[in-house]
Amino acid sequence: MSTPTNPSDSFPVQLEEEVQFYDTDCGGVVHNLAYLRMVEKARATLFREVLQLAPAQMEADQVFPAVTRTEVDYLKPAKLGDRIRIHARFEKIDRLRLNCVFELTLADDSGGKPLVRCRQTSVLVEMPEGRPKRVPEKWRTTP
Amino acid sequence: MSTPTNPSDSFPVQLEEEVQFYDTDCGGVVHNLAYLRMVEKARATLFREVLQLAPAQMEADQVFPAVTRTEVDYLKPAKLGDRIRIHARFEKIDRLRLNCVFELTLADDSGGKPLVRCRQTSVLVEMPEGRPKRVPEKWRTTP
Amino acid sequence: MSTPTNPSDSFPVQLEEEVQFYDTDCGGVVHNLAYLRMVEKARATLFREVLQLAPAQMEADQVFPAVTRTEVDYLKPAKLGDRIRIHARFEKIDRLRLNCVFELTLADDSGGKPLVRCRQTSVLVEMPEGRPKRVPEKWRTTP
Amino acid sequence: MSTPTNPSDSFPVQLEEEVQFYDTDCGGVVHNLAYLRMVEKARATLFREVLQLAPAQMEADQVFPAVTRTEVDYLKPAKLGDRIRIHARFEKIDRLRLNCVFELTLADDSGGKPLVRCRQTSVLVEMPEGRPKRVPEKWRTTP
Repeated sequence: MSTPTNPSDSFPVQLEEEVQFYDTDCGGVVHNLAYLRMVEKARATLFREVLQLAPAQMEADQVFPAVTRTEVDYLKPAKLGDRIRIHARFEKIDRLRLNCVFELTLADDSGGKPLVRCRQTSVLVEMPEGRPKRVPEKWRTTP
Repeated sequence: MSTPTNPSDSFPVQLEEEVQFYDTDCGGVVHNLAYLRMVEKARATLFREVLQLAPAQMEADQVFPAVTRTEVDYLKPAKLGDRIRIHARFEKIDRLRLNCVFELTLADDSGGKPLVRCRQTSVLVEMPEGRPKRVPEKWRTTP
Repeated sequence: MSTPTNPSDSFPVQLEEEVQFYDTDCGGVVHNLAYLRMVEKARATLFREVLQLAPAQMEADQVFPAVTRTEVDYLKPAKLGDRIRIHARFEKIDRLRLNCVFELTLADDSGGKPLVRCRQTSVLVEMPEGRPKRVPEKWRTTP
Repeated sequence: MSTPTNPSDSFPVQLEEEVQFYDTDCGGVVHNLAYLRMVEKARATLFREVLQLAPAQMEADQVFPAVTRTEVDYLKPAKLGDRIRIHARFEKIDRLRLNCVFELTLADDSGGKPLVRCRQTSVLVEMPEGRPKRVPEKWRTTP
């Protein structure tokens, strides 16, 4: 994955999280699963802010985004008390899939190497049947 | 809470869990929330084995046990790789409440001081309304 | 526990968290453990803002607060997308113990019944020996 | 990734986990992060059983495996009470990297489509410096 010089230029969603004890493990650094919890939060914000798809709407329609694939590279460790900035954007949305990209950096190290890079693919699923649903045309970035 | 000399005498459910990295924090020991995840598992087993209330039944009836109170004392720390034995039993079941007691010990230290003691109260709730439901008479330990 | 009419009067720390998918379970509401993750975050903020005890300091001194007891009452359920306000304050600090009180409410329901009430006791522990340490005199609320 | 007809033929480690409430979310199925917690447990077992690298040894040497990349495909949902079998094996171990493969299936559906497939890369890291360490020659599958 190529990185923009300054991620804030191109990521419409940016959150900040402070590393808590429960995010770390006895190796002294943040556990690999803890970063993915931060990614979950950023993806929810991305869906709400860019697509106007909020949780209340999902519950009302019983249509939920479901993650079908995650790729994540752990590049540098973070530790207790660090402030992490999570950058999120859509990469591509087609008829079936919504592809997101995430970049996690130390909040006070905007030019440095990211801590974590992540790509995720989601689909829309109608519950409780679990049937896949087409992505609305207005959201798609490719015809 | 008084402790029996040998907890295995009186606890109908006993599980064993090995401490994983994600159970620990950068203080070097098991995080307080991780023990409660073990308690969750033991309580599910207790409901299934003693009351024959299995998850499939809960889903079918849409009646779920909901925890209304937890009290937990953290007495000794455990660390990565330790094997923890979780002991669980019902203390009292009345018309409205199911009270459980849990004791967590190192698996190879049966006579020693427990790591954690926990008491929980649950009620039965009918979903999606969230209405409380009476505890079936056959389960009650007090009239 | 008695409740003040308006908790914001007396709680020096207040955080807001939006309920994420990973906070909920298949019963349709927030899982009991998820509230305690929010309490963890509020306690860290309380230690930093009221006692000026930040994570970097803990790491440098290898002195960490360790939870020895939690009492939590689950009063009302919250669900996906709800905004939860976590109120935190110290109740009493003596030579050995720091007692905290937490109240979780819906962010847009300031006069209503809390979702969750929690009390926790912490001690200070010197790592890696795990030796208890006296609470500094300047922090104590009782002689 | 190609699948063997019967995964138990080729995966030296197989664990079983029952889906708990905390593994599910309000969409009614297992949350994507919960499967990765199961993968963590299977990887720890793989390191211990195949390489004889147990947690106590890691602590003593202060050399820990650190995940540098995860790829995971979510193929079919699981739900509360399902028993999941986690299959784990090493794919390739060279001087720097240990590559693992995981396959999660329903325990009573051995011939069916997997729920989840996962690949992870780990390196060995010396703590607290975080320095990468060479993989011992005896473990390598490629020269």
